[in-house]
Amino acid sequence: MIFNKYKSSLSNTALYPTLSILYLCCMHKTISSTQNTLVKQVAKLSSTSRERKRTGLFVIEGEREISLAKKGGYIFETLLFCAEIFKGDPKSFAAEDTEIVQISEEVYQKLAYRTTTEGILAVAEAKELSVNNLKFQRDNPLLLVAEAPEKPGNIGALLRTADAANLDGVLIANPRTDVYNPNIIRSSVGCVFTNQLATGTTAEIISFLKEKNIAFYSATLQDSKPYHECNFTMATALVVGTEATGLSQEWRTESTQNIIIPMQGEIDSMNVSVAAGILIFEAKRQRNFL
Amino acid sequence: MIFNKYKSSLSNTALYPTLSILYLCCMHKTISSTQNTLVKQVAKLSSTSRERKRTGLFVIEGEREISLAKKGGYIFETLLFCAEIFKGDPKSFAAEDTEIVQISEEVYQKLAYRTTTEGILAVAEAKELSVNNLKFQRDNPLLLVAEAPEKPGNIGALLRTADAANLDGVLIANPRTDVYNPNIIRSSVGCVFTNQLATGTTAEIISFLKEKNIAFYSATLQDSKPYHECNFTMATALVVGTEATGLSQEWRTESTQNIIIPMQGEIDSMNVSVAAGILIFEAKRQRNFL
Repeated sequence: MIFNKYKSSLSNTALYPTLSILYLCCMHKTISSTQNTLVKQVAKLSSTSRERKRTGLFVIEGEREISLAKKGGYIFETLLFCAEIFKGDPKSFAAEDTEIVQISEEVYQKLAYRTTTEGILAVAEAKELSVNNLKFQRDNPLLLVAEAPEKPGNIGALLRTADAANLDGVLIANPRTDVYNPNIIRSSVGCVFTNQLATGTTAEIISFLKEKNIAFYSATLQDSKPYHECNFTMATALVVGTEATGLSQEWRTESTQNIIIPMQGEIDSMNVSVAAGILIFEAKRQRNFL
Repeated sequence: MIFNKYKSSLSNTALYPTLSILYLCCMHKTISSTQNTLVKQVAKLSSTSRERKRTGLFVIEGEREISLAKKGGYIFETLLFCAEIFKGDPKSFAAEDTEIVQISEEVYQKLAYRTTTEGILAVAEAKELSVNNLKFQRDNPLLLVAEAPEKPGNIGALLRTADAANLDGVLIANPRTDVYNPNIIRSSVGCVFTNQLATGTTAEIISFLKEKNIAFYSATLQDSKPYHECNFTMATALVVGTEATGLSQEWRTESTQNIIIPMQGEIDSMNVSVAAGILIFEAKRQRNFL
């Protein structure tokens, strides 16, 4: 930070060449080429799920999101900041061996997805999201299961609702995209870091729920009961599918009870995140919001 | 249709020049130039709200949407169909003086927003959406009011939920876009035509609700009561604002009761259409889904 402050006092001036050179030698490593290897690697991590899978790393953009990820126990391998935009102290987010790299505005604009972010990016280590790592603080957890959700906007909205309801966990069955997709991080406004998450196959998750004696209610038309007639006060998982294809057969046949939101319109097509919100908050109401 | 069938039997052949000319003379007017005046006018209606306002017309794309609009009482000035794609009978949607125009695939591709639609577009007359035109079938209508919603995706989701709940009306206060925006029609999957809609200023809508003795509950933090402790079985309007700025002061000070969805998360930021869904279906539950 001393160097950053020093730099800003020197900005837009060529009067102090000696001092400028001194400054450049002492400060964080600075990258101003968009062809730099690290820059290319960060861009690739942002754009391809395969690269995230291969390396176990992903990219977080924005001070608020990075702060939430840190709070959620994520560790950053690298922090990249643009001193012209970012006014905080990147060190405040760093672990002991986090590398801090200064980047030029040009490099930042190449890497940033959003136009209004705060000049800071992190390369973070992905968590191992197995159901076996889930820990619950109470005997009657309330969980959301979403099978094969596709649109990042919907996944983001589900995670926001799950955060607001303080759910004990969000389980994604047969995921079609990894949760560290930048569009999901963005549309969840960081709730991807505030929820306890797990992913797995439908079979793995069903077997987990049964083993833990968690009743699960599949939102589907077949053999279903109106959702508000069910008792969600015991250990409960609410299960939603996609708008296009609904839930797979295992969820329908293995469930404790299939449930339906009674619909009375012309079209009866509800957004999946709206449907999940209705189910989750009926459970919350039954539990007196405890 | 006779001509269309005849045409398809002639397709890809230059063997019957006389018949082709005869066919071209007898069939619907056909447009194959993207520079045609009507084509340009339809494109302009799709892309600019100002043009829709000036003419009182708007464009509907897709067979299902056109069918729902017809059922919802909309009248079409023009139907444009591409015989290579559309396999139905455009006359089935036409009123007595609807002009039916055949367009080439190139023209259709220029005009169509979606890649998977069915080769038919309609130019429809907008309805007069004043609150004074609202008609309710019962003494205790359940209404949704959304103030200044902006994102077409959110407006579409609100309209889908309103359809599923068979609300008695959706009122948009201080609209920032017209409801006949193609993105809203699309994201509502046609629910813009199945709901009874009205738009007006916040002052107009508040005065309408008061005059009709409709209790209104504003979703806001200030002086609010948990939503599930309120009785929504009488004539009720549920009022939601935007995620960014919430509701304007009039809604907060004039409401029958301010309400809140209790949130217990780290971020407590819920999508507006999810929040509206939770409120609407709590009211439905209280009313035994009647």
